[in-house]
Amino acid sequence: MGKEESGITVSKNSDFSEWYTQVVLKAKLADYAPVKGLIVLRPDGYSIWESLRSTFDKKFVKNGIRNGFLPILIPESLLGKEEKHFAGFNPEVFWVTHSGNNEIGEKLALRPTSETLAYTMYSKWIQSWRDLPLKMNFWNTALRAEIKSTKPFLRTSEFLWQEGHTVHTTQEEAEKEVMVILEIYKKTVEDELAIPVVTGKKSEKEKFVGAVYTTTMESIMPDGKALQMGTSHFLGQNFSKPFEVKFADKDNVEHFAWQTSWGISWRLIGAMIMTHGDDKGLVLPPKVAPMQVIIVPIYKNDEGKDKVLHKVDEIRKNLESKEIRVHVDDRNELSPGYKFNDWELKGVPLRIEIGPKDIEKQSMVIAKRHNREKSSLNFSEIGKIGEILDEFR
Amino acid sequence: MGKEESGITVSKNSDFSEWYTQVVLKAKLADYAPVKGLIVLRPDGYSIWESLRSTFDKKFVKNGIRNGFLPILIPESLLGKEEKHFAGFNPEVFWVTHSGNNEIGEKLALRPTSETLAYTMYSKWIQSWRDLPLKMNFWNTALRAEIKSTKPFLRTSEFLWQEGHTVHTTQEEAEKEVMVILEIYKKTVEDELAIPVVTGKKSEKEKFVGAVYTTTMESIMPDGKALQMGTSHFLGQNFSKPFEVKFADKDNVEHFAWQTSWGISWRLIGAMIMTHGDDKGLVLPPKVAPMQVIIVPIYKNDEGKDKVLHKVDEIRKNLESKEIRVHVDDRNELSPGYKFNDWELKGVPLRIEIGPKDIEKQSMVIAKRHNREKSSLNFSEIGKIGEILDEFR
Repeated sequence: MGKEESGITVSKNSDFSEWYTQVVLKAKLADYAPVKGLIVLRPDGYSIWESLRSTFDKKFVKNGIRNGFLPILIPESLLGKEEKHFAGFNPEVFWVTHSGNNEIGEKLALRPTSETLAYTMYSKWIQSWRDLPLKMNFWNTALRAEIKSTKPFLRTSEFLWQEGHTVHTTQEEAEKEVMVILEIYKKTVEDELAIPVVTGKKSEKEKFVGAVYTTTMESIMPDGKALQMGTSHFLGQNFSKPFEVKFADKDNVEHFAWQTSWGISWRLIGAMIMTHGDDKGLVLPPKVAPMQVIIVPIYKNDEGKDKVLHKVDEIRKNLESKEIRVHVDDRNELSPGYKFNDWELKGVPLRIEIGPKDIEKQSMVIAKRHNREKSSLNFSEIGKIGEILDEFR
Repeated sequence: MGKEESGITVSKNSDFSEWYTQVVLKAKLADYAPVKGLIVLRPDGYSIWESLRSTFDKKFVKNGIRNGFLPILIPESLLGKEEKHFAGFNPEVFWVTHSGNNEIGEKLALRPTSETLAYTMYSKWIQSWRDLPLKMNFWNTALRAEIKSTKPFLRTSEFLWQEGHTVHTTQEEAEKEVMVILEIYKKTVEDELAIPVVTGKKSEKEKFVGAVYTTTMESIMPDGKALQMGTSHFLGQNFSKPFEVKFADKDNVEHFAWQTSWGISWRLIGAMIMTHGDDKGLVLPPKVAPMQVIIVPIYKNDEGKDKVLHKVDEIRKNLESKEIRVHVDDRNELSPGYKFNDWELKGVPLRIEIGPKDIEKQSMVIAKRHNREKSSLNFSEIGKIGEILDEFR
């Protein structure tokens, strides 16, 4: 299948940065787009994002948060309404100045984040305490022009993320929400991606521009650097005042509301790659792996082939019935060794090998990707595959 | 709860356009954004989109299509690579010319559609027949500057949609794909939104700029006009030639590939509103309704209240256990009549009323939104609610 499939040519220890880029490209998670700083996600990369999105979404819904849609264009005057916020984002904003051949009146920003737009709408929608809390989330992309070189998932000028924006009647309730979200972030990253994280507060200098304070979830990457993986901000009334997000309380007196905003991005995928990958390539945590089990049938002649493929099909159906994401690599023109390398590069958590001798012994060889352990499993123990997948880390 | 909840003030027959706008805004599906031509989706509006997306997605996956991500920025030179395509889209393209205070080198288009970008990537990814068919889909937004006045979901400068892009070794296979997709579109719109559609071919003048031919799914709206609700294009080799989407066949000879592209957008929500809505407001098909059943408890004193709420809670739990999306309107300060109007405006398919007299008779009143029929249902027949929801139309 040509050069694209060949393995990683540097070790994780010797050249971490080059190793990372090779894993992303060769495992076919992403590729560079024609515009500098932008990337394209291929199906396996996007599938991991969809899996994370679905898990976060369920937790958000349980916490009373509902999804909505905001357009990508924000007028300059709106973005400038909270001064510190504007000063912080202005240098990296992409500006639309024309539609067709015509110059447009006021230039429009591609959203670097949507506080200003969301709160303009909230100010219309909220009248009284009955409308609160208002808790919405938006799965979209944000654009911030990167001048440094691109690192897929870690440093790109457009990135997939979610931005949550909540409004509350009291400071206490808003501050509680900040922590509830941070806890959802931490738990999800630990459970789904098997990355241990620490949470804490950002310094005044590093906080979100416009926030009262920023809480953060971070992890130490194998290169020794801390990676920020999600932030949850207490905005106080810093935005509710300029944007007039007000509510009439039960006593009919008007108050400025208390707000939060929070987000995680596809940077989580970058953290996953760095944390678990090895010199053979990607290592995927089973919960987010697009494919959890790869079965490689092994045979030398047509007679052996029929027997093996028959058994392989039985195993595949059994795993599918348990909702395990399984694929059979029955490509004729490639050797088993080539296939092993290929799926290891792509990080598939578990490989099953079945050949004529295995059928005689009524067992199969299983190879775990994350610790590269090989062992034998009786066909009758097929029910254990789910547990074996859970043993990651 | 103030003015926002008040009913529709014109009839569907007398002023269809004004009626439509009022339904969208007052049922809180969407609202106007600060930039002319753009809208924001509120939770109920976005929830309908999520429901459609999920249904389409399952069908796409079954047909071997996988999702990916493409950035929103396309360099001018790339957009211009297929001449007719560029000439068609150029007048409505939004152009990014600056990042921060700096002019960028080549101006960048906000995607009006992604053929040019996707096929630039495909050309890198496809080497041989083994890489085909390549079938990908992208859930994103497209931007096309609208000069006419905005109609939420029908005519906006940014819209949620999906764009599918497939590549095949033969013309026959590509043309078959065009029809498979059109059939998925038709069946989904009929099943989920209960809108009857006709399919056919667009005239030369109306086809997608760059396509060999365009197939379309359309329906006649209550104002007598045909609405285009989805298109599936056979691109032939019109793009594979300029973008060099080539593959080595089994005989090792290089060929230009055969391609398709296809899309549906949130316009489907507009069609749903127009087709089913009435003078009382929105009418939602149960399959896509964010809330399928609203229960309104009716009582006059505290003793009645306890009894009623106890029963209401039992009914709610029963329906939830059957995965019916149900909500209890226990707002204290509002009359039952007000609540009836409110939920009718929002199009909830079925209302259940339970008061002390109903409890005596061991039955509840059910009111269907779409035909406004009221009847009585014994508590013991609660299992029939699912069937009753299916009776829409």
